[in-house]
Amino acid sequence: MPYVIGIDGGGTKTKAVLLDETGKVYAVSKAGPSNPTAVPSEQLKTTLQCILVGLQLQAPNEYKQVKAGFAGMSGAGDAVSRSHLKKIFFDLTEGRFPIWVDIDAINALYAGTLGKPGILQIAGTGAITYGLNKEGECERVGGWGYLFDDQGSGYHISVKALSAVMQAYDGRGKATLLTKLLIERFSITEVPELISAIYRSDNSKTVIASLSPVVLLAAEQKDEVANHILSEAAEDLALSIMTLHKKLFGNAVHQKVILTGGFIQHSPLVVSSLKALFLSKGYAFDFQFPRIDPAGGSAIAALHYLNEMPKIEFVSNFHASINTVEEGGVS
Amino acid sequence: MPYVIGIDGGGTKTKAVLLDETGKVYAVSKAGPSNPTAVPSEQLKTTLQCILVGLQLQAPNEYKQVKAGFAGMSGAGDAVSRSHLKKIFFDLTEGRFPIWVDIDAINALYAGTLGKPGILQIAGTGAITYGLNKEGECERVGGWGYLFDDQGSGYHISVKALSAVMQAYDGRGKATLLTKLLIERFSITEVPELISAIYRSDNSKTVIASLSPVVLLAAEQKDEVANHILSEAAEDLALSIMTLHKKLFGNAVHQKVILTGGFIQHSPLVVSSLKALFLSKGYAFDFQFPRIDPAGGSAIAALHYLNEMPKIEFVSNFHASINTVEEGGVS
Repeated sequence: MPYVIGIDGGGTKTKAVLLDETGKVYAVSKAGPSNPTAVPSEQLKTTLQCILVGLQLQAPNEYKQVKAGFAGMSGAGDAVSRSHLKKIFFDLTEGRFPIWVDIDAINALYAGTLGKPGILQIAGTGAITYGLNKEGECERVGGWGYLFDDQGSGYHISVKALSAVMQAYDGRGKATLLTKLLIERFSITEVPELISAIYRSDNSKTVIASLSPVVLLAAEQKDEVANHILSEAAEDLALSIMTLHKKLFGNAVHQKVILTGGFIQHSPLVVSSLKALFLSKGYAFDFQFPRIDPAGGSAIAALHYLNEMPKIEFVSNFHASINTVEEGGVS
Repeated sequence: MPYVIGIDGGGTKTKAVLLDETGKVYAVSKAGPSNPTAVPSEQLKTTLQCILVGLQLQAPNEYKQVKAGFAGMSGAGDAVSRSHLKKIFFDLTEGRFPIWVDIDAINALYAGTLGKPGILQIAGTGAITYGLNKEGECERVGGWGYLFDDQGSGYHISVKALSAVMQAYDGRGKATLLTKLLIERFSITEVPELISAIYRSDNSKTVIASLSPVVLLAAEQKDEVANHILSEAAEDLALSIMTLHKKLFGNAVHQKVILTGGFIQHSPLVVSSLKALFLSKGYAFDFQFPRIDPAGGSAIAALHYLNEMPKIEFVSNFHASINTVEEGGVS
């Protein structure tokens, strides 16, 4: 029975699991940020040490038998960061077992495909598309940042909503329910007060991105402007997904696409538009949300490196056992 | 012969002229910023005092005979700022002659219409549309800031250009000459380096807005993507101008539209698209650039308040005399 470690490292937190190929989780540990481009080297070492020691303390017998680990880390897109992280892991494990390092898109994808190739579409504040084919080739499309490339993200649709409200206000555009909803949201009385509410906030980007639920609400209430904004978001995401698909998978008609991020996971309208768009083009794409935690996706990547595949009961075992461990374990 | 003073106050500089209704300029003075929302009250008083003292020293006899002044000030959109500025001017002139205060759109408009009603379209880094009809009613459309309402501005087209370059890079969009031009502009070798060049600059907004000449250059070289961006800018500006026109002038077929701002004044392609758009809708709009300096526009506003109109020779006299005064005068 191969025991493996899966690590998901991000800009705000790091999480690790120790499990076997049936999905049974023996230990879970959590720590602060571990993005190597944002965290000083000493702090990074301490964080990763905490993570591994946490697993060892909770499940010492299983830890001894660990064969491999995988760490999906945000900020590990370049070779320098990856080799820096690998060196830290080598020292922490004293070389007893390998911990492979790659970008956190891999484990996010595997959290949905359970180790199979496919496409990952992230659409939260920002939007970016990743893919991995069976030859192990990776590609990326989009995600060049909020200033000029954020199509299909929560930020982008919120900007469009604000723009539509200002255009309706001064007569350039159609009236929209978004006006009433945004006035309520900011507890203001007149539309122009939106300007100071947003420009004078400490973090305009965050304030704007937080408005995407308002657009979803207006669309659910059949607001034409909001529905148009969401349709465009679905088209933007479809373009990114199709571009990436062609790069990695050629003309294949079937494809698994994992959708993750706060915006897309709360937008049934956008998801159904996406499905319809691909169907209308003759593609049988299978859109899914992640089935397990991304740290679990990393554990599957570790199994993958050992030429093992997760067993059929993996997902149900994972959910049952991680809850037990998290409730009782060190965190 | 009525002598008047025209003041143009902005966020970076303030300029004043003393002239008569034939356009003959007797004095010109310049100082720093005088936007009351950005400059502390004491500094504001000093700046405006310098401006008036400068005129008085250069042309003491004419200054004695001044009947009125007008100050078009950026940041004077609200009643509080206007009354604050009026009080300062009252103290500085000891109430001997009135200096009326209004937003700087009035004098920018009059710099083109020479005191007639009309529409002012500003399109520099940002874009905003103002209008004034013969009943003295003012309106504004657009200009709600770069985050979500900057259609038709230099900033907006530059964002679209960057977006197009990233989309071409990862295969979502058409190849464009903009890629080569932006790579040269930033002295980089690969497209993704644009991201750090822009996001890591101290002022991303200014860096982005400064790219509009690149879009114009690509369009002149028949680049399809750049031409499309400029066509959309012309449509955005046309929508704002038409919205404002309907508010203030109803269905009138004739209209004078003054175009000002770095982006539009250097975009013959956008100007000709704008002209064609209105012509195709049956409107005989007369698009012009300002004919004189905005401080001169303020002087015309002051004449206007005295029920005087600039004489036929005003523009040629203005240009001839302001050059002489500026070369020899205190500045």
